[in-house]
Amino acid sequence: MHIETEATQHLHRAAAAARDASRILGRAPLETRNSALRAMASAMRADSDNILAANALDLAAFSGSASFRDRLALTPARVEAMAQGLDDIAELPDPLARTLGEWTRPNGLRFRRVAQPIGVIGMIYESRPNVGADASGLCLKSGNAVILRGGSESHHSARAINAAMIEGLRQAGLPEACVQIAPNTDRAYVAAMLGGAGLLDLIIPRGGKSLVERVQREARVPVLAHAEGLNHTYVHAAADPVMARAILANAKMRRTSVCGATETLLIDQAIAPSLLPLLVADLRELGCDFRADAAARNILPELTAANDADYDTEWLEATLSIRVVDGIGQALDHIARHGSEHTDAIVTEDSDIAEQFLRGVDSSVALWNASTQFCDGGEFGFGAEIGIATGRIHARGPVGLEQLTIYRYLVTGTGQIRP
Amino acid sequence: MHIETEATQHLHRAAAAARDASRILGRAPLETRNSALRAMASAMRADSDNILAANALDLAAFSGSASFRDRLALTPARVEAMAQGLDDIAELPDPLARTLGEWTRPNGLRFRRVAQPIGVIGMIYESRPNVGADASGLCLKSGNAVILRGGSESHHSARAINAAMIEGLRQAGLPEACVQIAPNTDRAYVAAMLGGAGLLDLIIPRGGKSLVERVQREARVPVLAHAEGLNHTYVHAAADPVMARAILANAKMRRTSVCGATETLLIDQAIAPSLLPLLVADLRELGCDFRADAAARNILPELTAANDADYDTEWLEATLSIRVVDGIGQALDHIARHGSEHTDAIVTEDSDIAEQFLRGVDSSVALWNASTQFCDGGEFGFGAEIGIATGRIHARGPVGLEQLTIYRYLVTGTGQIRP
Repeated sequence: MHIETEATQHLHRAAAAARDASRILGRAPLETRNSALRAMASAMRADSDNILAANALDLAAFSGSASFRDRLALTPARVEAMAQGLDDIAELPDPLARTLGEWTRPNGLRFRRVAQPIGVIGMIYESRPNVGADASGLCLKSGNAVILRGGSESHHSARAINAAMIEGLRQAGLPEACVQIAPNTDRAYVAAMLGGAGLLDLIIPRGGKSLVERVQREARVPVLAHAEGLNHTYVHAAADPVMARAILANAKMRRTSVCGATETLLIDQAIAPSLLPLLVADLRELGCDFRADAAARNILPELTAANDADYDTEWLEATLSIRVVDGIGQALDHIARHGSEHTDAIVTEDSDIAEQFLRGVDSSVALWNASTQFCDGGEFGFGAEIGIATGRIHARGPVGLEQLTIYRYLVTGTGQIRP
Repeated sequence: MHIETEATQHLHRAAAAARDASRILGRAPLETRNSALRAMASAMRADSDNILAANALDLAAFSGSASFRDRLALTPARVEAMAQGLDDIAELPDPLARTLGEWTRPNGLRFRRVAQPIGVIGMIYESRPNVGADASGLCLKSGNAVILRGGSESHHSARAINAAMIEGLRQAGLPEACVQIAPNTDRAYVAAMLGGAGLLDLIIPRGGKSLVERVQREARVPVLAHAEGLNHTYVHAAADPVMARAILANAKMRRTSVCGATETLLIDQAIAPSLLPLLVADLRELGCDFRADAAARNILPELTAANDADYDTEWLEATLSIRVVDGIGQALDHIARHGSEHTDAIVTEDSDIAEQFLRGVDSSVALWNASTQFCDGGEFGFGAEIGIATGRIHARGPVGLEQLTIYRYLVTGTGQIRP
């Protein structure tokens, strides 16, 4: 209770400072924001030894899995990549320099809808240190102040990285409160952030399912979250077999742990007898395992039988659910029932069927003849992303600089009054 | 507890039906959606006697204030206005027919960002029966299924109106579950809606401050809410006095109870001695009362003294707070400290100062030489609005058809795989 109060008090102060900072930052010219980004990158390069030493402290105290350890670990090359990421953000177009609409009403009132920062963003993430640097850079460029709460395992690293951010802000003459980190890694601070209605305008969680679910369940602040990516690749009867093999191998196996990975193959019964054995052989060679329905096992009896729950499982590993369908209707129906509206693809040479698929799925990203692993801000041309949104308001899909903005109206009159 | 469970079960069924209906509605051609709107309007005209009889039952049981009674009461003209509102929505452009962006990446992937319905919307409103009809029409046109929970005082009216909506859906061949109403007016149903994460995609509350605050506090679902409209009109030293008088009288007194009404006058000290007495005299003649700072009372000693809380008060009645400022800096500072980022106006002939004001306030609507009462979807040219959004994600200001949509990406390739 006492800790809770302390955390809440700290957040109140941090958020008030962030609000003031966001007003200055939101009106800072592009050149000021870019020079801060470049100064942050330089400071990070200059501080590289300190950052690595801080990371060594985190690693020394760490006792988790090898894959978690790999995400936590920094190297000189990874520090340089973070710095380069900030320089890259400085090169991107200004998301605040956009007039999104302009019109004049019969009474002469002239309306302009212009882009504007969201305000103060809370970022809650697990222990990959680069997420803090990327998020700081994206928020800064888009004019938003950010309060970062990283995982406890990476706290020393986060502090060292934040010092470089603050040095960059100072050199550019921007308030240090533009980029703040939580004072400690108590869970009470997360609770304070989730309860921070009116203090934070948006919370972005980045991490595993349990973190995201906790944030969505408890937050009193709008949340832009990435939930599940239960993605399908549908190989239609009129697919080019060579293309289908290349796409499926990439969509499933390029990286199995990313949210854009394909989890279920749907294949038309007309093409399954000839093509499914080739698809399975390709994937098996890459180390993939399978859960197949009865029709697929009629063709390849050695496959493990799928149960219903398999089609609702986001594997995030080298396992693929397989179902044979009788055509696009059944494919769309399966995706509507089992999908997570994240990313779904069709492989076909039939453009009418493709258009039916693109219009027929509710997925935030629907692809025709391409790998589901293209669901990524960089691949979309956004330059960088802060995450993928799976909700249905504000933004869907990759969240880049533009998605970190909102808009307002500027209305110019000549003395109009409302009748 | 038993009631809670029953409400939750009903909501689960209603939301599942709404989800299925939304998939059909979201893909229905514009002509189908428009013909449903016109059939709804016809059914409402044909059912006018039934709707008025149901409304008479509500009025007979009603024992509240006269102004509440007026909002609750229907007349033949008000029923016709609701029907006309639906016909008007049918005339508006299709918000789903918009391609919001289109580009091709160096690897040949072609991206299209297209408008899409949000999905299933929950609307919680107080007892103005027309809100249910308007919301039904706007949601239908934008491809969203809606579940309406109106105030208990208007339940008979809401049911009768909903019958006309359903008749329209039936005639157009659309699922009846596109527009549903709560089965009763138990508060447990509101609780079920607020807890309906995954069932509802968005909740829009429309009503008094306590309703909106409860929704914002308890909702586990994204909320698009209208909070406070603590709006300012700033009369700059270079204002045209005649224009300033006309604008202020309109901004404050056209209707005092609307969210776009001006609550505080800020006036430059250079112009106050000559202009303030005229502004006050105009407003006093219209029945307005005042809370003024010391500088204003030096000019007009008969004014009531303002205390600090007055500048934080959304009057929504014929009272105006007045403060004399020493220039635009102090005006912007006052608005940042006391405003609600809703709607703020400047009156000046100096275009540099005006631009400084428009860029300097965070208001969702910033006006130059026009009345704050223009903050309205109809006045913006949206045709109709479901409310005003005061949050900082998804939408700010009037929420019309376009703001009831989101987007998704259609990506077309030729076999691209991700390196």
